[in-house]
Amino acid sequence: MSRALSSSSCYVISLSVSILLNIFFLVCHLHDDIGSGTWKLQKQELLTWSQIAAAEAETVASISCSGHGRAYLDGEQIDGNHVCECHRCYQGPDCSKFLYDCVADADSGDPLVFEPFWMQNAASSALLVAGWHRMSYTYYDHTFISKELEEHLRKVHEIGGNAKADGKFILFGAGSTQLLNAAVFALSIRNTSSPAKVVASTPYYPLYKQQTEFFKNGNYEFAGDAQLFKNNSDITSNVIEFVTRPNNPDGQLNKAILHGPFVHTIHDHAYYWPHFTAIPAPSDEDIMIFTLSKLTGHAGSRFGWALVRDENVYSQMNMYLSMSEMGISRDTQLRAFQLLKTVVEGDGKDIFRFAYSNMKKRWENLTKIISLSKRFSLQEISPQYCTFFQKVRGPSPAYAWLKCEREEDTDCYAVLEEANIIGRHGNLFNADSRYVRLSLLKSQDEFDLLLYRLHELVSMEDSMKMVQQL
Amino acid sequence: MSRALSSSSCYVISLSVSILLNIFFLVCHLHDDIGSGTWKLQKQELLTWSQIAAAEAETVASISCSGHGRAYLDGEQIDGNHVCECHRCYQGPDCSKFLYDCVADADSGDPLVFEPFWMQNAASSALLVAGWHRMSYTYYDHTFISKELEEHLRKVHEIGGNAKADGKFILFGAGSTQLLNAAVFALSIRNTSSPAKVVASTPYYPLYKQQTEFFKNGNYEFAGDAQLFKNNSDITSNVIEFVTRPNNPDGQLNKAILHGPFVHTIHDHAYYWPHFTAIPAPSDEDIMIFTLSKLTGHAGSRFGWALVRDENVYSQMNMYLSMSEMGISRDTQLRAFQLLKTVVEGDGKDIFRFAYSNMKKRWENLTKIISLSKRFSLQEISPQYCTFFQKVRGPSPAYAWLKCEREEDTDCYAVLEEANIIGRHGNLFNADSRYVRLSLLKSQDEFDLLLYRLHELVSMEDSMKMVQQL
Repeated sequence: MSRALSSSSCYVISLSVSILLNIFFLVCHLHDDIGSGTWKLQKQELLTWSQIAAAEAETVASISCSGHGRAYLDGEQIDGNHVCECHRCYQGPDCSKFLYDCVADADSGDPLVFEPFWMQNAASSALLVAGWHRMSYTYYDHTFISKELEEHLRKVHEIGGNAKADGKFILFGAGSTQLLNAAVFALSIRNTSSPAKVVASTPYYPLYKQQTEFFKNGNYEFAGDAQLFKNNSDITSNVIEFVTRPNNPDGQLNKAILHGPFVHTIHDHAYYWPHFTAIPAPSDEDIMIFTLSKLTGHAGSRFGWALVRDENVYSQMNMYLSMSEMGISRDTQLRAFQLLKTVVEGDGKDIFRFAYSNMKKRWENLTKIISLSKRFSLQEISPQYCTFFQKVRGPSPAYAWLKCEREEDTDCYAVLEEANIIGRHGNLFNADSRYVRLSLLKSQDEFDLLLYRLHELVSMEDSMKMVQQL
Repeated sequence: MSRALSSSSCYVISLSVSILLNIFFLVCHLHDDIGSGTWKLQKQELLTWSQIAAAEAETVASISCSGHGRAYLDGEQIDGNHVCECHRCYQGPDCSKFLYDCVADADSGDPLVFEPFWMQNAASSALLVAGWHRMSYTYYDHTFISKELEEHLRKVHEIGGNAKADGKFILFGAGSTQLLNAAVFALSIRNTSSPAKVVASTPYYPLYKQQTEFFKNGNYEFAGDAQLFKNNSDITSNVIEFVTRPNNPDGQLNKAILHGPFVHTIHDHAYYWPHFTAIPAPSDEDIMIFTLSKLTGHAGSRFGWALVRDENVYSQMNMYLSMSEMGISRDTQLRAFQLLKTVVEGDGKDIFRFAYSNMKKRWENLTKIISLSKRFSLQEISPQYCTFFQKVRGPSPAYAWLKCEREEDTDCYAVLEEANIIGRHGNLFNADSRYVRLSLLKSQDEFDLLLYRLHELVSMEDSMKMVQQL
């Protein structure tokens, strides 16, 4: 396994670093006092208690994992040395050994595609947390919400041009995950005899069904595909429609299909950012839910937010979040704040440019391969004018919604599995099993392997043709 | 308002610090190569990208708030300068102005009493988070739980001697708050006609009732005081008893009072640490819930954990946490890890000694005042042998459970409010309104003001006697 300096010797060296630094500065200071220099130094420039943490972080970051793994502060240690956590399909102390028979895993929406952006912005995104940071239950204004973070989120919406945040209440949740159920909970508190029906347009994100059924109480129940209610001209009991724009899995810019006095919508805008879709106009819906995971790539931080128009709905959602856990961890809010500080630097568009160019390239490489195939097809996403890039732009979706076209390939998941490719089964999205979702969000290693396996699979079509021609 | 260096100039200086440091080391290195010195330097000791964050954190920490406030990285800034967030009752740019008519607020259990410990351990508890830290949904082992943090938690239980963690499953939650409901949810999933009855012994922590009623579904409902079920010799439907040991509000070492095949218990051990109570023996219950808030004082981090014996209950609770939010923020887990690393340093007993001596002193000062009064009384906590301190020890509870003894003082909360003291109303704990809970956990400023107001109030008794004697 890869070795760095042992933590203890690292500490010693860092301490001496700090002491030497102070001596260095005191000498300068002295010289400054004696001489005619104008360089003024104040106590706070002499770094002291932060240097052990700084040295440990840089030591861990400097461990070579060959670009196929990463060492973490809270990762495994052997003899006091941090070691590499290798990406799937890589092994060895420095993750340099590729496992040639490794399966391509395109199941999860793990947004590691953003990781290089944060390596490139190491200095501005680094965060030093003091041991006594925000120990209290509440912020200075007695809320559970960091005002500075709220301001940065509103600013990001302004830059991205994807949502009208002005005049909306804001709520923080543990990813969009928690906020989705908080919204269902809040909207279903009505004095009606029958429970509210929760629906979404097929194909839909599996969590809507799983979560609604798991937490189901007397007030709401999952009722499947929104289409079933479309021709029901007079909906007389409460219906809650999830509108996923752009849609997970197929990237289409869905709109609400149900309307009327008893219909409430929850707009899941997790992917409504310029790097995944054209932004025709800023969204101005009643409940709009976003997640850091698909803006900066920090899925592990479990941070999301909701913009809510109606004060009663906001209050009910707020109560749900307070009763669940008394607000989101101040550590998570601080981390999100530091990341967004980096995001809004300069014109605040770098992260969108970075992610767009990467997602676009991935989609182009994928379509190049699938276009050679008669066996598989991909969803069509028509070019649209994007207010962010101020031009008509093509697709750069987070997921491929792959279809098996051959009559006999009724279980597309199995077809891919046979070819060492793991996707997400179409059935989970309430769709036909001829469909599979492939994630395009993962690390470059994962995506490259996916392309390689797909290329193998598509190439087989030609060889099979040749066999038939013999 | 108090001013530090402006962030920008701070950045510039930090960068030059880093560059100068590198030159300094390179010179050493060079000299080392030429000369016969044995001091070896490797690339990772040259601190670079961490130094802006380090400098900003130290700059913010160095802002003087007169010990009556604090500046935070994510706090308000004026003209790019961080400013003090003053404690209640203090004002001014450096929080030096005391507001003499300020009300003493002993309502919340905000554990700021721990803050000085973390200032004293600034270097070892500081944490530098890289921008790319743990972006993924899962850890290396595909779970939502940091193994290193788990190991440290088990070690702390070993040192504190308060719970048998071996052979128990562990779960992480957003404070104990989330885990309490996760446990109720898990225990109530039974194929019985009637919903499980959730009970607790009066006086009980208000959240049990509030949370159970708020999230109530068909499977469980709150049923009040456990005593009501005590003489019900044959409990035939599911009962879930919250056992709070030591109890919030009165610090008593409660035990389960209901037994039988249909009874399940949830042991809330938030305060079962040597600084709040004698530890007669390590707890070995089916479900034991703890929170960082009452171990290290980091209430704002919203981190708790549960030790669970039964695998099915564990799996159900785990499902609850996954469905709610896909596990606890990796940022929060990293912070908890860093804090616990500091806690277990040396013999790992410093934090217990620190908190115990503070809580003991606070209790002694409080009892000194109340002992002069005939109008008010405090709960009795009998001395017990503590396996941690290996001696019989007196009380050091987190809360005072104050009683108004005068016949006419039926609303004790109002009596205290009249004297500019805010407590928590006895009714909230399902107790008589002659009782009020006073928090002893807050900052020294808050506690000193509480003592001052109580002293004023008790002194009035004498002056009233004198008036009667005239």
